[in-house]
Amino acid sequence: MFRINENFLKLQGSYLFSTIASKVSAYTEANPDKKIIRLGIGDVTLPLCPAVIDRLHSAVDEMAVKETFKGYSPDLGYEFLRKAIADHDYKERGVDIDIDEIFVSDGAKSDSGNIGDIFSVDNKIAVCDPVYPVYVDTNVMAGRTGEFDKDKGVFRDVIYMPCTAENNFIPELPKETPDIIYLCFPNNPTGTTIPKAELQKWVDYALKVGAVIIYDAAYEAYITEDDVAHSIFECEGAKACAMELRSFSKNAGFTGTRLGFTVIPKELKCGDVTLNSLWARRHGTKFNGAPYIVQAAGAAVYTPEGQRQIKEQIAYYMNNAKIIREGLKSAGYDTYGGVNAPYIWMKTPHGMSSWDFFDYLLQKAGVVGTPGSGFGPHGEGYFRLTAFGDTENTKEAVERIIRTC
Amino acid sequence: MFRINENFLKLQGSYLFSTIASKVSAYTEANPDKKIIRLGIGDVTLPLCPAVIDRLHSAVDEMAVKETFKGYSPDLGYEFLRKAIADHDYKERGVDIDIDEIFVSDGAKSDSGNIGDIFSVDNKIAVCDPVYPVYVDTNVMAGRTGEFDKDKGVFRDVIYMPCTAENNFIPELPKETPDIIYLCFPNNPTGTTIPKAELQKWVDYALKVGAVIIYDAAYEAYITEDDVAHSIFECEGAKACAMELRSFSKNAGFTGTRLGFTVIPKELKCGDVTLNSLWARRHGTKFNGAPYIVQAAGAAVYTPEGQRQIKEQIAYYMNNAKIIREGLKSAGYDTYGGVNAPYIWMKTPHGMSSWDFFDYLLQKAGVVGTPGSGFGPHGEGYFRLTAFGDTENTKEAVERIIRTC
Repeated sequence: MFRINENFLKLQGSYLFSTIASKVSAYTEANPDKKIIRLGIGDVTLPLCPAVIDRLHSAVDEMAVKETFKGYSPDLGYEFLRKAIADHDYKERGVDIDIDEIFVSDGAKSDSGNIGDIFSVDNKIAVCDPVYPVYVDTNVMAGRTGEFDKDKGVFRDVIYMPCTAENNFIPELPKETPDIIYLCFPNNPTGTTIPKAELQKWVDYALKVGAVIIYDAAYEAYITEDDVAHSIFECEGAKACAMELRSFSKNAGFTGTRLGFTVIPKELKCGDVTLNSLWARRHGTKFNGAPYIVQAAGAAVYTPEGQRQIKEQIAYYMNNAKIIREGLKSAGYDTYGGVNAPYIWMKTPHGMSSWDFFDYLLQKAGVVGTPGSGFGPHGEGYFRLTAFGDTENTKEAVERIIRTC
Repeated sequence: MFRINENFLKLQGSYLFSTIASKVSAYTEANPDKKIIRLGIGDVTLPLCPAVIDRLHSAVDEMAVKETFKGYSPDLGYEFLRKAIADHDYKERGVDIDIDEIFVSDGAKSDSGNIGDIFSVDNKIAVCDPVYPVYVDTNVMAGRTGEFDKDKGVFRDVIYMPCTAENNFIPELPKETPDIIYLCFPNNPTGTTIPKAELQKWVDYALKVGAVIIYDAAYEAYITEDDVAHSIFECEGAKACAMELRSFSKNAGFTGTRLGFTVIPKELKCGDVTLNSLWARRHGTKFNGAPYIVQAAGAAVYTPEGQRQIKEQIAYYMNNAKIIREGLKSAGYDTYGGVNAPYIWMKTPHGMSSWDFFDYLLQKAGVVGTPGSGFGPHGEGYFRLTAFGDTENTKEAVERIIRTC
């Protein structure tokens, strides 16, 4: 008789955003006339920029002609895309990354989940708390987290690193030594980040204790401050202890188009074995590449027009972030983030729990956000709003929140 | 200190098709003037059909406008696509599949590898021998196969079910009881298939012993004979013991466009737990959907024009299959398959080993095929040729083989 992976049964509830979607859908069914403003899931709303659209069309035309038709893509992704990434995302910042250290994928969510395949089950993971749920949930599935402690709302074998207003959302080096450290800066969900000097401390720590850092830089395009690193590889020694996940979802609006990449330097080793070789094998065996037309479109993001156009989109979203941040702040709310990231992290008013505030806002204001506790126990009492909406709707949402609470 | 997944170190050599690519690339570098004909990897060569191209263009246009722009797709895939699949691939064949039993993905290779996530490590797998390497390699990575036995060329804890000319390429029910059975019909690599009555025996067997069948039907569009099932769910009781993988790669030329789906009926359970719910959780947590434009294009495959156009492409490839099969047969070679599948499986001449014949054909005839032994020990002495090439090249390849051997 076949047996299932019992670790799945340890998962708590459904995936956070599926739960939110169900609640919103129930509300809209019951209130078909009410206008909902969605600042919950971090999904973009601006259309793909013209440079990307043009390249998608021309790539589709290539697929219509035998001479230019493309079948299976190269295992690591097309060289034209990996070269554009190496040049623009790294060389221009003084970081030397070889194109064979870049693995093109269908997105950072897949990569951040699938990367676990190359690690032993008996590694101890450390995560910020609150945190993007995929890091923990995929490790639960793999059996790395132990049982869930209902009283504390945590998995027993995971090292949680609290990030709250009290420590300025900068995690402290953990007391217990982890093997795998997940870091995401600029941070989802808090919208905050850490100075480069603070990130260097993490690299030094990982090198000292022999840990690997899985660095999620999906939001690097939103960085506005000079002392914040766009890549962990800007830190000295990082190539020997870190890998980096990147995405086209938030900088270029590819949430529904799917493209990302992971950088694994060849210096990153366990004994004689490079993690690069393991991921190459995983990539070649369990994945067949992102679509050619999407990889071509991804390369268009790096053209001068593409860069100019996505910067306009980012500026649009960051203006929304400012509207939320300043609007709520001037009304007396404690808000964080929104300077180097498209997320605003607010304290719930009147000491409400995160989910109570979620329900209250949905019912009373028709505004959807994300309950902080959905990201971990130290997210309790906080609430995430995203800047990815339409500016008019964002203004209205802020007014509704202020009016309602 | 972090630890890697040591199971990866048990993998033998590199992924088969990566090895072939390296050999071919070395040959072409050394012989830049020689024309190579590639009948190795099962990659299509005809461009996407007009119905698909048109829908890709119109979907790209939707992504250019705020009102029709699409962000994250629904977890299981867009309903319009899942409904088209349920109607055309199942209802029309008398099989009732609910759209919530269909999970749209970026391809059957990813699904056939990732599906392992929902099963315990201590399941015993059974595979046909020869077999698509992904089934075994991904189970090696997961730790389900035990060590490799170099003398026998097999993993010690895997049940191999020989498929050779002697048993007409129909596997016998195994003596040792498996928990998970991988079946692929029409078969890759042998190009053969089994009558529906034979498939029913496997369903009955799985129900009896409590095994789950992972049924790979990626080549169902090539079936020409009436007594061959297009879906395992045509067999009685299959919904309680089987899941089915499907692909748009071979029927509609999506190898470089990436789209597939997996069907997991809600009747398929381990105790009280449905595999459908586990895969839904895996899908929602470690994957973010196939691109909207690709899902839209997939739905276009099911339109009357799409169906007519892909049937023409399939007929083109099957004519190639006939050219290879009959050409080699009339020259005295033992060939199999090619009637319900785009693969021809031939015995190597003069008792050559599969890899010797690969090297010989590449060097002497400039023809690339796939060595049978790359698919498993019982593939030794066989060689796979694909019908996905250009017809003129296919004719020339057959002539070159006959002339050379």
